[in-house]
Amino acid sequence: MRRLAMDRAKRLLFGSFLSSSQSSLTPGPASSCFPFSPFSSEAPMSLYKFPPVTVETINPKVKRCEYAVRGEIVSHAQRLQQELQTKPGSHPFDEILYCNIGNPQALGQQPITFFREVLALCDYPALLDRDETHALFSSDAIARAWEILDLIPDRATGAYSHSQGIKGLREAIAVGIAERDGFPANADDIFLTDGASPAVHMMMQLLIRSEKDGILCPIPQYPLYSASIALHGGCLVLSEENQKEIVEFCRKEGLVLLADEISRSMGYGGDDLPLISFQSVSKGYYGECGKRGGYMEVTGLSSDVKEQIYKVASVNLCSNISGQILSSLVMNPPKVGDESYESYMAEKDEILSSLARRAKALEDAFNSLEGVTCNKAEGAMYLFPRLHLPQKAIKAAEAAKTAPDAYYARRLLDATGIVVVPGSGFGQVPGTWHIRSTILPPEDKIPAIISRLKAFHEAFMDEFRDQGVA
Amino acid sequence: MRRLAMDRAKRLLFGSFLSSSQSSLTPGPASSCFPFSPFSSEAPMSLYKFPPVTVETINPKVKRCEYAVRGEIVSHAQRLQQELQTKPGSHPFDEILYCNIGNPQALGQQPITFFREVLALCDYPALLDRDETHALFSSDAIARAWEILDLIPDRATGAYSHSQGIKGLREAIAVGIAERDGFPANADDIFLTDGASPAVHMMMQLLIRSEKDGILCPIPQYPLYSASIALHGGCLVLSEENQKEIVEFCRKEGLVLLADEISRSMGYGGDDLPLISFQSVSKGYYGECGKRGGYMEVTGLSSDVKEQIYKVASVNLCSNISGQILSSLVMNPPKVGDESYESYMAEKDEILSSLARRAKALEDAFNSLEGVTCNKAEGAMYLFPRLHLPQKAIKAAEAAKTAPDAYYARRLLDATGIVVVPGSGFGQVPGTWHIRSTILPPEDKIPAIISRLKAFHEAFMDEFRDQGVA
Repeated sequence: MRRLAMDRAKRLLFGSFLSSSQSSLTPGPASSCFPFSPFSSEAPMSLYKFPPVTVETINPKVKRCEYAVRGEIVSHAQRLQQELQTKPGSHPFDEILYCNIGNPQALGQQPITFFREVLALCDYPALLDRDETHALFSSDAIARAWEILDLIPDRATGAYSHSQGIKGLREAIAVGIAERDGFPANADDIFLTDGASPAVHMMMQLLIRSEKDGILCPIPQYPLYSASIALHGGCLVLSEENQKEIVEFCRKEGLVLLADEISRSMGYGGDDLPLISFQSVSKGYYGECGKRGGYMEVTGLSSDVKEQIYKVASVNLCSNISGQILSSLVMNPPKVGDESYESYMAEKDEILSSLARRAKALEDAFNSLEGVTCNKAEGAMYLFPRLHLPQKAIKAAEAAKTAPDAYYARRLLDATGIVVVPGSGFGQVPGTWHIRSTILPPEDKIPAIISRLKAFHEAFMDEFRDQGVA
Repeated sequence: MRRLAMDRAKRLLFGSFLSSSQSSLTPGPASSCFPFSPFSSEAPMSLYKFPPVTVETINPKVKRCEYAVRGEIVSHAQRLQQELQTKPGSHPFDEILYCNIGNPQALGQQPITFFREVLALCDYPALLDRDETHALFSSDAIARAWEILDLIPDRATGAYSHSQGIKGLREAIAVGIAERDGFPANADDIFLTDGASPAVHMMMQLLIRSEKDGILCPIPQYPLYSASIALHGGCLVLSEENQKEIVEFCRKEGLVLLADEISRSMGYGGDDLPLISFQSVSKGYYGECGKRGGYMEVTGLSSDVKEQIYKVASVNLCSNISGQILSSLVMNPPKVGDESYESYMAEKDEILSSLARRAKALEDAFNSLEGVTCNKAEGAMYLFPRLHLPQKAIKAAEAAKTAPDAYYARRLLDATGIVVVPGSGFGQVPGTWHIRSTILPPEDKIPAIISRLKAFHEAFMDEFRDQGVA
């Protein structure tokens, strides 16, 4: 046993200890389950030389990884927020406005009532046996909670589920997909995940063998391809044609296509194209980012490859059950005739129309700025305005050892408290500079944001304006 | 832009499509946000030869990974369960008993009421403004929900949090750790995670640079070091000494120590030893496996290394908020004087004493079997009985191209519907054979399980009994 442990020993040690409070039911010797012999002082371990754990000795892949939407600028914003709390008035603004990430509820958007009713009832099912509950919850939320509990083996909302997620919930999601697309979907192709990011990681882990394997992605791309870019490019006519073009391209080139929620109407036949379709509850009008629910639908891969995906999924046991339930809810919202239907539709419509108003207002504001051009949001919760920066500003950025768009974003933050992401984090045409900003601040704050933005930009241009424009 | 995309193109393609139903607010051309030019038919991509995605062409590391607790035997059990549903009476048992994984609520254990009350109130905070709520929820659950909502920026339970988790919840957890151990803990050292497994993955990703980096771990070890082995070895006196021995050993050898919840009483000083301590809400008497909550406490690493850990954490944005809340609850349960205190303690004590009774009954049962020796559970929710198998059985296993313990486990499942894990999945002294079984089946089913187990083992030994014993 010593040899067995020693042969594998190099740099890490796994232990398994218990705090006194979480301690054993019946104290007693541990030797049976814990081999202490290898840990004697004369262990051959002493022959090894271990590097200390420093940034130089960790996995270089981790060092290389950059994540713009939560990168340096966000850390700086968090520092500023701390300073505002400790020293009010220490900055020319009284709050930080996080426009760096699609996080609607952090900026005041309220959750859809029906979804939260059902989640609460599933978290505390004892409520379902109480009369008072009917005064507090809509009848269809109560009915839905019963339906969902009946889909969960032993109604155990606190148990690990099947590693792909609760079968009944995957079946409900498959029904939702089929109703949406008019094409059948199969519960066995669906893997429920803690949001889209872990699903993307899972597929990267499965597919990427080495640096020789590459990824072709749209520019601008979303770092690590989380759910957020999904609302981009949701443009019919033209774009559907283009999307079919891409599907055809992948089929011809033998590429694996990984994409946010693809409608069957894109014309992929399923088995003739390896396709992984991601969906997240953080996406869409409901914006339930903190619930970390989502799924991926895997089609066009052989059953033995899917077994490997299942194995990777099983290593983390299962995704969180509340997220699994919420995924089934967003794919099966209240229907005509349900008690909640009208209030649900009203909540949904108000969110979508408000987003459209905010998108238009911010788009117009960006386009009104000197040297800034901004496309329509096209259904995105983001804008990606291009900055035509003066040479003096670009030189100032070089002097500050940062990219011009990062320099602009940092200056914007310091002057206004508005947090945006430099376009360089998303990939942009070399020599062009952009920032990405969400359209999510509360509608009543938009006018103030716009005037702060305009004032900053004017001052910035006054500082750097020159003849040459990048 | 084409070149930029093409240079990186090899085998995968990232797309970003929208289903019609989740489509744009305002339709329009997509070209602005989606560069379709690279996808024209004469793209240089055609020069590449792409391997089809098969088990042979995926990441070999994934193929190598084995995960016993959800491995082949569990897939087989799921098949049997299906057959029982479709063809009742098709097997000599009428239900599958999953003793392969520590999943208490899947086997009838009820969640702690107070924890679920608070989760439900946080999922649907509108309840807090209603009078009827006081008839349905305990006053301290209502008070705790208010406290927690006030810790969450804008009370947004549906928002992405700080990547380490909500600051206020981490502070509450640090207080809980300090009260438990009598040593201070720092909220900035705490990273909230979706259970312990993702935290372990995060640290493996950070620390393992190549096959040259190894891991020294206790035998039997838990595959991928999830929370479950934690309840093992929670044995005072002797084991605390041994644990201090290990801590001292790591300090001397410059090892990174990764372990389940370590009490400061283990004598580690914090900064002189790199230590990562994992905790999960699936662990402990509450057994909230499906909530996927947990945290790791990182001490003894430099701030720039911790920045790298933060970066890895930020890539998945944040862990699920319900799990974050639950983590703060299990570390700060009701206290003397709270309305829920007595019912909480009663629920906790009943769970723990029932677990102790079940552990004793199953331990005695295993020890009563011919050629089987079983140690005490020692506070674990598992038993790890050793099987002294007849040579004929070992030969039969060889003929079936499987390990003797896997062969025994498979035969046990086919005969009784009881799912246990072969010891080979946990590491065992070469030449010895074990099975791992949880003690979690409902107490009223234990007698039936024991008689099924005894009948199977007798028949198995009658089939294979010989002179030589392994």
